[in-house]
Amino acid sequence: MILHYVPGGCSMAIHIALLQADIPHRLVSVDRSKRTSDGRDLLTINPRGFTPTLELDDGTVLTEALALLVYIAERAGTMLPADGLPRWRALEATSFLTTELHRNFRPFFRGDTAQMDITRKDLDRHFLTLARQLGDGPYLLGRELTIADPYLFVMLTWAAMFQLEVPAPLPAYVARMKQLPSVVRAFAEEGLS
Amino acid sequence: MILHYVPGGCSMAIHIALLQADIPHRLVSVDRSKRTSDGRDLLTINPRGFTPTLELDDGTVLTEALALLVYIAERAGTMLPADGLPRWRALEATSFLTTELHRNFRPFFRGDTAQMDITRKDLDRHFLTLARQLGDGPYLLGRELTIADPYLFVMLTWAAMFQLEVPAPLPAYVARMKQLPSVVRAFAEEGLS
Repeated sequence: MILHYVPGGCSMAIHIALLQADIPHRLVSVDRSKRTSDGRDLLTINPRGFTPTLELDDGTVLTEALALLVYIAERAGTMLPADGLPRWRALEATSFLTTELHRNFRPFFRGDTAQMDITRKDLDRHFLTLARQLGDGPYLLGRELTIADPYLFVMLTWAAMFQLEVPAPLPAYVARMKQLPSVVRAFAEEGLS
Repeated sequence: MILHYVPGGCSMAIHIALLQADIPHRLVSVDRSKRTSDGRDLLTINPRGFTPTLELDDGTVLTEALALLVYIAERAGTMLPADGLPRWRALEATSFLTTELHRNFRPFFRGDTAQMDITRKDLDRHFLTLARQLGDGPYLLGRELTIADPYLFVMLTWAAMFQLEVPAPLPAYVARMKQLPSVVRAFAEEGLS
């Protein structure tokens, strides 16, 4: 399968999850004009033009980070328990990250300072909630890494990029996550330091 | 279980799904000050204060519309195929609705006209994509109702409330959905006409 990604984008959560699940894949980067590094136009593959876009070996195109994380987890039998409360907590946390965290960074990427002041308050509040949920960790939902972790990790790299301070124990969590072999490799493969 | 809801809110998607799945539940409405109709403060139940909030019989509290829809579907064995492309398409569509549709209505609820002009363009574009995906229907992903339908339906009631025109065949889809017994009952139970 092919993962269409933007270096350091939310697609990195999918990249980390693919490595974590040990699923063979090829990486194709996408630039601002939606050209792919293998010379195609992303809009012909995914009309919405979003990354992450996952192209399966049979040509099926899947999109939406949460759906891709569940797809990867269920295919590999890891990062998402099959049933019970840990399953619902992992889906709940990932959904929260995609709906409430991700979107609040948009004004930062766009340099829209008026909106930034508004969404910054939401981000601060949400990172505090996540810090409490993390507690002793080591992962967001306890002892096992779930689909919520790659996504939370990427949101925290965005917070660092925009110099938003996040409360303890989130900085220690970022440091731990950065030592995972999947994260080390994802950074290297996306050309990030 | 108890569904904490706001009449006509996105929690209505969960209400419809519960009825569609025939899962016994009790409804508790929440007002603007987060007081519940059974005399509690929603913040003591769900510190984020969001609806929908689902309170299970053992006291477990689950949140996030997408997670609740998957919970209901997997518990009842309906509205979400267990595997294969139909499963991923249903998760993809529901994720798209929660991340890209829902949030773009926020300026309309807040009366923020400057932001409204921006998010209106996104909404128009997304409803066009959804209209194409719906095609002959009768449901968003084809012949079977999935977890994406109650959510899409509620987003379309919001579009109607704010007098946003949506392209064919979405208006006919709304009319069809309004005839489902689960939808008729959800409207009645939430005190809506």
